[in-house]
Amino acid sequence: MAEYEQMLAANEEWAKSFPGSKPVAPGRKTAVVACMDSRIPLFGVLGLAVGDAHVIRNAGGVITEDTIRSLTISQHVLGTREIVLVHHTDCGLQKTDDAGLADLVEQATGHRPPWAARTFTDVDADVRESIRLLNESPYLLSKDICGTVYDVETGRLRQVEP
Amino acid sequence: MAEYEQMLAANEEWAKSFPGSKPVAPGRKTAVVACMDSRIPLFGVLGLAVGDAHVIRNAGGVITEDTIRSLTISQHVLGTREIVLVHHTDCGLQKTDDAGLADLVEQATGHRPPWAARTFTDVDADVRESIRLLNESPYLLSKDICGTVYDVETGRLRQVEP
Repeated sequence: MAEYEQMLAANEEWAKSFPGSKPVAPGRKTAVVACMDSRIPLFGVLGLAVGDAHVIRNAGGVITEDTIRSLTISQHVLGTREIVLVHHTDCGLQKTDDAGLADLVEQATGHRPPWAARTFTDVDADVRESIRLLNESPYLLSKDICGTVYDVETGRLRQVEP
Repeated sequence: MAEYEQMLAANEEWAKSFPGSKPVAPGRKTAVVACMDSRIPLFGVLGLAVGDAHVIRNAGGVITEDTIRSLTISQHVLGTREIVLVHHTDCGLQKTDDAGLADLVEQATGHRPPWAARTFTDVDADVRESIRLLNESPYLLSKDICGTVYDVETGRLRQVEP
């Protein structure tokens, strides 16, 4: 059975105990920007309930044009104001560098990506870089930002000083 | 108390029952691309365990350069092969259009975004558009894609025919 078939089957169980509908605007007026890492179940990690917060995730949890697009819609259309960043230890983006990733993709596919992979070495510095990029954006209504690092070995979240 | 302070406090409870570490490569070799909507707790909705799948989320769950960057890293560096798309009913991106969002942001901030908001009207068509964009990308190793729509009123996931 393909993974998607197992997920569709698991969803039937979820729907049986579905807690009911919620408004489209996040109740806690917060957007979380986090890494796509498979070990971070954000609802549990942050104590979120269904309907509480937007969840934006990409490789690294970095700030890109797409992150800004999502946060702009989150704030202007759906009323969020706080931004919580979740980076983490043992990130896949610390295991290569931008040129190394481009080489790997070019060797496997024959096509070299024109975009940067956004690899990094120091996770705290990467959180501060995200805060800097958010503060530079002219499109956001609110820059009430908390940067954190999640430890995938302990489950603990640590705030990063800006 | 700010929302982030409540989340840091909730995390202390999470860490007390932390289930233990997992490898960085997703165990089920799957990447999920979903909307940032606050009503979709993907781990529960899809029956995912910690360590199972990458989770990429943005406004609409659409395919952008950043989505391709994340999926490229997911496949080339961390070994995923299936892609599961999760769009949903009652999406914030169905409540405006690209020009309307640009007008709203310009009126509030004095700056008109140069990027498209990626609004849509027909959710099934938007899932098919995502599948088309993924199939066009030269950087991915695998295009084993399942597109779905999540009903935020019932908790049910429905597969969309490509």
